[in-house]
Amino acid sequence: MNNSDQTQTESTNPTIDTMLAHRSIRKYTPDPIPQEHINAAMIAGQAAATSSAVQPYCILHITDNDKRQQIADLAGPQQKVRDCGSFFVICADLRKHMLITERAGNDYKTGLEAFLVGAVDASLFAQNFTLALESLGYGTCYIGGIRNDLPKLNDILNLPQGVLPLYGLCAGTPDESPSHRPRLAPQAMLFENQYPSDEQNLAHIDQYDELYKQYLTDRGANPATWSESIAKKYSYAAREGLADFYESKGAKLC
Amino acid sequence: MNNSDQTQTESTNPTIDTMLAHRSIRKYTPDPIPQEHINAAMIAGQAAATSSAVQPYCILHITDNDKRQQIADLAGPQQKVRDCGSFFVICADLRKHMLITERAGNDYKTGLEAFLVGAVDASLFAQNFTLALESLGYGTCYIGGIRNDLPKLNDILNLPQGVLPLYGLCAGTPDESPSHRPRLAPQAMLFENQYPSDEQNLAHIDQYDELYKQYLTDRGANPATWSESIAKKYSYAAREGLADFYESKGAKLC
Repeated sequence: MNNSDQTQTESTNPTIDTMLAHRSIRKYTPDPIPQEHINAAMIAGQAAATSSAVQPYCILHITDNDKRQQIADLAGPQQKVRDCGSFFVICADLRKHMLITERAGNDYKTGLEAFLVGAVDASLFAQNFTLALESLGYGTCYIGGIRNDLPKLNDILNLPQGVLPLYGLCAGTPDESPSHRPRLAPQAMLFENQYPSDEQNLAHIDQYDELYKQYLTDRGANPATWSESIAKKYSYAAREGLADFYESKGAKLC
Repeated sequence: MNNSDQTQTESTNPTIDTMLAHRSIRKYTPDPIPQEHINAAMIAGQAAATSSAVQPYCILHITDNDKRQQIADLAGPQQKVRDCGSFFVICADLRKHMLITERAGNDYKTGLEAFLVGAVDASLFAQNFTLALESLGYGTCYIGGIRNDLPKLNDILNLPQGVLPLYGLCAGTPDESPSHRPRLAPQAMLFENQYPSDEQNLAHIDQYDELYKQYLTDRGANPATWSESIAKKYSYAAREGLADFYESKGAKLC
């Protein structure tokens, strides 16, 4: 199983193949995912690790078309939120812990640790859930755009204290077959014992820049290097109300 | 593929089976994971979705035994950090974005959005990476304990500005076969359009409490319900220096 004389073909299998097949899907047929497949993906998702079994997350399945359209509008607009087969909102869930701690007669204590564990464990769950759906033949697309206006999302979903929406997830039967967006080389992401020097880091980035620009050119998108996209993105503050919103819902960040 | 007349057996496959087989492994043989398997898991991990291709994470492979022992000590001690086949530290990586933005002559702007995307995208990567290793026959265990003393970890690993350690990961050949820790029922985690009432929420928790206590009893651990564990855990502030540390490394949380 783990001898050093593996041949290359032994480094892959159906699980790894499912991961490698991932592309975000932005066009779907309207068919909802059958409940049985959602249930199978839930159980597989929940099998992911969770810190001290705290399970600090929940997932809302939005089947109400009016709510779907309102979320599609605030998230971009991104019409796929309305039009994909099934749409979900993944949340950090501190509420269960609040209810339990208060039922025991204690004050609920929280801080960045609880928020971070919420975001991390929700995402370990979400990636299993997403990959399980992909293994069943569906396409997926995470929707960070719900963070454009969390107070409005909160009103649409009528969320109680302690439920913190992180991102959405479109899923369903793909109605397109896009190419794979290239990634930074593994050598730019995995380091032995020591983070690299700026020179080494930027050399990896320079190599990736041309690959990324070619990918955009091939798709007919505005060609830009990765560096050009990143430099533009991080020259402006993004979604500045985020901390205030999460704190208003019971998180403590600082 | 996604008709509503699926039979139950069509809701599983090797990918879902790999997920369902997960248990955190706390005892390992000392054999390191061959580089070829680490590379295969990296490429599979990096295939996970990442917000606007920002890829805001990196992973440190700690092969230096002295560093491994120091990290094992601060994380508990948890001797498995030293003794497992291979040990990794997963980080949010804002540094690449900082370098690129400054090279372009702009000020790097950051906030909770960048930190959250770092934690989320690192975890989508990490769950793919972990599951890929499990699909190749290895056991794994996430190590939140590195957050016990991030300033010390920072010194051990000599991390530059913008590199924010989130958690560790033990991996290697299992030397134990523990039972599966039960999870909350899917109905306690997946809700249609609306988060449940406190009564419904607590009813699910009450059901789970006995299952959880039985699991601990069967393992020979101190029996406690999930509610008892949670009420105890969240009556005390945890890892209070976290926000200050991350802000000292260039994150902005509030």
